Amino acid sequence: MEIQELIKKQAIETDSKIVLLVMDGLGGLPVGPQFKTELEMAKKPNMDKLAMEGALGLADPVARGITPGSGPGHLGLFGYDPIKFLIGRGVLEALGIDFPLKIGDVAIRLNLCTVDGQGLVTDRRAGRISTELNAKLCEKIKARVKISGAEYFLEPVREHRAALVFRAKGLGDKIADSDPQVVGKEPLLMVGEDEASRKTVRLVDEFLAQAKPILKEEKPANMILFRGFAAFQEYPQFNDIYKLKACAIAQYPMYRGLARLVGMEVLEVGAEMDDLFSVLKENWSKYNFFFVHIKKTDSAGEDGDWARKVEVIQAVDKQIPKAVKLKPEVLVITGDHSTPSRLKAHSWHPVPVLLWSKNIRPDLAREFGERSCSQGGLGRFKMKYLMGLAMANALKLEKFGA
Amino acid sequence: MEIQELIKKQAIETDSKIVLLVMDGLGGLPVGPQFKTELEMAKKPNMDKLAMEGALGLADPVARGITPGSGPGHLGLFGYDPIKFLIGRGVLEALGIDFPLKIGDVAIRLNLCTVDGQGLVTDRRAGRISTELNAKLCEKIKARVKISGAEYFLEPVREHRAALVFRAKGLGDKIADSDPQVVGKEPLLMVGEDEASRKTVRLVDEFLAQAKPILKEEKPANMILFRGFAAFQEYPQFNDIYKLKACAIAQYPMYRGLARLVGMEVLEVGAEMDDLFSVLKENWSKYNFFFVHIKKTDSAGEDGDWARKVEVIQAVDKQIPKAVKLKPEVLVITGDHSTPSRLKAHSWHPVPVLLWSKNIRPDLAREFGERSCSQGGLGRFKMKYLMGLAMANALKLEKFGA
Repeated sequence: MEIQELIKKQAIETDSKIVLLVMDGLGGLPVGPQFKTELEMAKKPNMDKLAMEGALGLADPVARGITPGSGPGHLGLFGYDPIKFLIGRGVLEALGIDFPLKIGDVAIRLNLCTVDGQGLVTDRRAGRISTELNAKLCEKIKARVKISGAEYFLEPVREHRAALVFRAKGLGDKIADSDPQVVGKEPLLMVGEDEASRKTVRLVDEFLAQAKPILKEEKPANMILFRGFAAFQEYPQFNDIYKLKACAIAQYPMYRGLARLVGMEVLEVGAEMDDLFSVLKENWSKYNFFFVHIKKTDSAGEDGDWARKVEVIQAVDKQIPKAVKLKPEVLVITGDHSTPSRLKAHSWHPVPVLLWSKNIRPDLAREFGERSCSQGGLGRFKMKYLMGLAMANALKLEKFGA
Repeated sequence: MEIQELIKKQAIETDSKIVLLVMDGLGGLPVGPQFKTELEMAKKPNMDKLAMEGALGLADPVARGITPGSGPGHLGLFGYDPIKFLIGRGVLEALGIDFPLKIGDVAIRLNLCTVDGQGLVTDRRAGRISTELNAKLCEKIKARVKISGAEYFLEPVREHRAALVFRAKGLGDKIADSDPQVVGKEPLLMVGEDEASRKTVRLVDEFLAQAKPILKEEKPANMILFRGFAAFQEYPQFNDIYKLKACAIAQYPMYRGLARLVGMEVLEVGAEMDDLFSVLKENWSKYNFFFVHIKKTDSAGEDGDWARKVEVIQAVDKQIPKAVKLKPEVLVITGDHSTPSRLKAHSWHPVPVLLWSKNIRPDLAREFGERSCSQGGLGRFKMKYLMGLAMANALKLEKFGA
């Protein structure tokens, strides 16, 4: 039995509260003369105090050696097996702009691109046009393209990327990208692998036939490539599984989307670090599970900016007392994956986990860091087990068997 | 999804190089006044330096508590689930003499034995006759036994043991041994569980009917027992799964055979320790995965010779700079199982693993040994996950999910 199914059987409803504080891309690699990771270097007296009182561990979001995207990373945090519940790229793109997908929708990533007089692709990203131009082109297309037999939604994302969603009955997503991946070739014909997918292809072909003349005279974005076809499927709902009333406090659309995907209520929040914790406080009485998401650790890591990642962690640390003051039964501080600034990318390295609760069995750790986590009392585990640990420490799981 | 299938999906072809250095039976148990294992006792400054820069862990070849044979041990190292991909004993015997098995062949272990006038087994191993006498008897049999409808191959192995291979279409291997396991009984009748296996039994019965009169007057080996019927099946090929160009540098036939089984190219190599590393250097530009196998650690362990095992490890350590000088992206030093000299046998104890790469997250280890490995940053894992870790650190795995 999957751990999540087991937890579902044992879960009971209680008033105890869990805070899951996710610093995106938290895990790092050591650099510099002191050879410390970003987390090890950061001055974070509040987290270190929690580390002393709580317990540490290292978690693999998917499996040892596997580098997770944001989708699998968060599914793991929410207790879903990220291999079993894969999120298609088109769906993730739509989630990333807060698009309210419905079950059965097929979402597609759309690249505005450049083709020459012969229709051969000369730039797969149309020179990364501005998001403003992208938005104008999307408006033009939406004003004139009419598809019968289906609703469609077209939303600009960033630079040359947009999200296209078709809504109709019986649509499939077994369709390969039309992106030829190299320049000098025509866009590929789209072919559906089954009847439902062929129905989607007919809609996309119709969309393209109408959009093509609209874009023809545009420069440089005069054509469209379709990628990452993905039907939006129903996910087992977080609140049903865990008998929780969960909310998400996240500033970036993708993470709001991922939380919405599993049925969390997504709260409005301002753009500052302070705002996350104000919203947490304001909503304290209304929920008993709080997913708080901090993006800037990951952004700094992706930019290869070790010092900035250290600063973000220090800034988060200053907010910690606000969460502690609310007296959650369980406070978890972790990440969805590692983004070492040395690699400027997501990585496979396991993620530091701090679990603080008065019911935890404490370990010998004195501070929160990758190396102390590797010696921690929680040991090494797959991230999908974290929810069970949080639930157990919040006394929300019944005894298994007599 | 099995980890190997997942890795196959994420694997990309790159030029980066991985060296997997296997000291057979590496893991040990502490003895003597200093109470150190062979690995802990050995003076091995080169490995200890790699341990400081890299990360350590402990791996279970099959599962906790399970003592692996050489087949499962190596399958685990190569990333195959050794429970799913079991290698039959007959096949292992044939691999062990470098016999070029083809898919569909049925391989059988054959014991020359002694029977009395009534046909009752009096010695299941014919007093462990010399390998020379064994070879002579095999020659005699081969010269006179003719089987119609199938090719057969008979090769002496060691002492009383030989390998018998039948090659024909539609042969099965669901046949119990004819070895009665105790003296004073007749060899058991062989019965095939299905039609294909009955076809094999008819061939073996025919073989025995012709061989019996040839052996009748021999002393002490005047009869044959058949054991470990095993059809040679196709294995998923290593290079296909990992998108690697792999070679094996191994001096002992069984390990060459195991490497060939998964499709590695098996290189010619002399009998000395130096030869292994010369061949590594000579072939450096031709491959990007190098399986280097050292047998003598295991032999010393099996002989219960603690001091000799220490010496072998020290001798390997002197060679390490040759491998480091080639600048592999990933260098793994480990074993296929433990062979503590105190037990004079393979054991279930987990195997020390050292993974060195510039992309590794270092741990606190200062030296390579069982106890430092138990505190290492790689943690405790099933050996089948090692290939994913090596691939990840060589930047040969794409991100999973968006």
